[in-house]
Amino acid sequence: MKLGSLKEGGRDGTLVVVSNDLGRAIRVPDIAPTLQAALDDWDTHEPELRSIYRLLNQGGQADAFPFDPAAMASPLPRAYQWADASAYLNHVDLVRKSRGATMPPSFLEDPLMYQGGSDWFLPPTGDIPVASEDYGIDFEAEIAAIVKDIPMGAGPEACGDAIALLMIVNDVSLRGLIPAELAKGFGFFHGKPPTAFSPVAVTPDELGDAWTGGTIALPLISTWNGKEFGHPDAGDDMNFTLPQLIAHAAKTRPLRAGAIIGSGTVSNKDSSRGFSCIAEIRAVEAIEQGEPKTDFMKFGDTIRIEMLDAQRASIFGAIDQKVVKYDGPA
Amino acid sequence: MKLGSLKEGGRDGTLVVVSNDLGRAIRVPDIAPTLQAALDDWDTHEPELRSIYRLLNQGGQADAFPFDPAAMASPLPRAYQWADASAYLNHVDLVRKSRGATMPPSFLEDPLMYQGGSDWFLPPTGDIPVASEDYGIDFEAEIAAIVKDIPMGAGPEACGDAIALLMIVNDVSLRGLIPAELAKGFGFFHGKPPTAFSPVAVTPDELGDAWTGGTIALPLISTWNGKEFGHPDAGDDMNFTLPQLIAHAAKTRPLRAGAIIGSGTVSNKDSSRGFSCIAEIRAVEAIEQGEPKTDFMKFGDTIRIEMLDAQRASIFGAIDQKVVKYDGPA
Repeated sequence: MKLGSLKEGGRDGTLVVVSNDLGRAIRVPDIAPTLQAALDDWDTHEPELRSIYRLLNQGGQADAFPFDPAAMASPLPRAYQWADASAYLNHVDLVRKSRGATMPPSFLEDPLMYQGGSDWFLPPTGDIPVASEDYGIDFEAEIAAIVKDIPMGAGPEACGDAIALLMIVNDVSLRGLIPAELAKGFGFFHGKPPTAFSPVAVTPDELGDAWTGGTIALPLISTWNGKEFGHPDAGDDMNFTLPQLIAHAAKTRPLRAGAIIGSGTVSNKDSSRGFSCIAEIRAVEAIEQGEPKTDFMKFGDTIRIEMLDAQRASIFGAIDQKVVKYDGPA
Repeated sequence: MKLGSLKEGGRDGTLVVVSNDLGRAIRVPDIAPTLQAALDDWDTHEPELRSIYRLLNQGGQADAFPFDPAAMASPLPRAYQWADASAYLNHVDLVRKSRGATMPPSFLEDPLMYQGGSDWFLPPTGDIPVASEDYGIDFEAEIAAIVKDIPMGAGPEACGDAIALLMIVNDVSLRGLIPAELAKGFGFFHGKPPTAFSPVAVTPDELGDAWTGGTIALPLISTWNGKEFGHPDAGDDMNFTLPQLIAHAAKTRPLRAGAIIGSGTVSNKDSSRGFSCIAEIRAVEAIEQGEPKTDFMKFGDTIRIEMLDAQRASIFGAIDQKVVKYDGPA
């Protein structure tokens, strides 16, 4: 099943069921006005939404209309929690090596995770407003899960069962602000402006065999200014599965319905597949050529992030954004 | 005006207007079902709620019922953003000194702020469930603001104008988990389990002269196991005002209605006023006596946090909690 949120309605948008081929969508006000409302009582609403989805895929549902990614907000336009990990340690290892540091062995057992802001997500297609190119504007292509209620201390198996939906992510990062911020010791804040998610969120069964129970075993394609920048496979070189990351998040707190847990930048050891963020190619350049050669994003740059199924059809729709100069509050 | 949320209703509770003396409360379903709904359209709903508040204080409103702190959820039982600073640098300075480190001079100009989890807050009265006393269970008494929509890049003046409500806070902290977590570089996560806020949130005008425009110039009283532990004045020794902290939070992102920004542990240079967290008295003990003497909280311990007006009446109601052992998911 595929679900999304139209920009219309209130701050939480309007829930729509989207057809498997991303061709048509339908509002479902009699089931739930918003995706958060559906998640708040998922066990009741999921089967109701699936009934609509089946009819929609069969060509039924006269009230359906053409699906337009540009009309979509983030599947959750705002959320109550967004926690993002760094589960592909090849990324961490490369970035550390490029500055002459090594990765602590504990990183292999204890996931890195930061708390992100979630009161407003960027729409999947549209602008990324940034005040200055000097901030070092970067994308990070990732995968993420939206969960049901999870009690504190739940293990990976229970956490896997609690995954309601999956998305792909652009975890926009301001590299120039991060080193000073992390040196202060309190973690990311300015360096992680609002994140973007895919036009639709999908249930794990929608992925067939590509859903391993732990991750999505498919390439995640990042296209920067119209040129493919990377297609690392989200199924390879992931040191912690999504259920393991969710269990990590739940160690000292419950997670409540609609919480989003991300994988961090997808990164493979096989560098011929390219990269999911600019910081990583810069790290490789620093290691191999003595210094980074690739600049960060400029105003006007575009980034497209997508995942295709075996038939080369888009699963989540494309994150398709443009970096624009933000001139300050009106 | 004083507002709170009954535990009844859905995940966001049920909005009530509470009388100035915390004696009576009334549901306002015709205005807004929840505090978040009121904040989503604050400029419309605030005057409507104030009308009810005036009548309630005059003894009117036949539908009012006795106010019971135990029936209250957090004013926002869940929120879309909770960002907490460390604006009383005396606290930071002491903790650093106790481990032989100094505070970087940049801390005087660039606020410390971490992103907290916000998908579930502890009720103001009730249990703090923790899996192990070895986690180093601590309270942190703070003040916080709930804001209206704020555009990215807004300055302190605009941010001050956007403060809708004020609360007091227990930012529960697990000291034993924090050093290893911060050493990983991604900031707090396990060390900051769910936070508690006061039974009611109040508009700044409610504080009279005690609201300076930047902070609340009143003592914040922490009582641990029935004994006063500290009453530092939130108006003294604050290095960054709430509007400055909010502007810091809005540097690279907009803040959306209902976002909560906290001050960090209230701490005064005059140590005769006591402390707002155990970590700080332990730091002073380490500096003065060579090692910390005071243990962290044990199962069964209670913590009460309150702020009184000039007539010794409780402004926000008391945060009144008990630490209990959490035995894991059922």
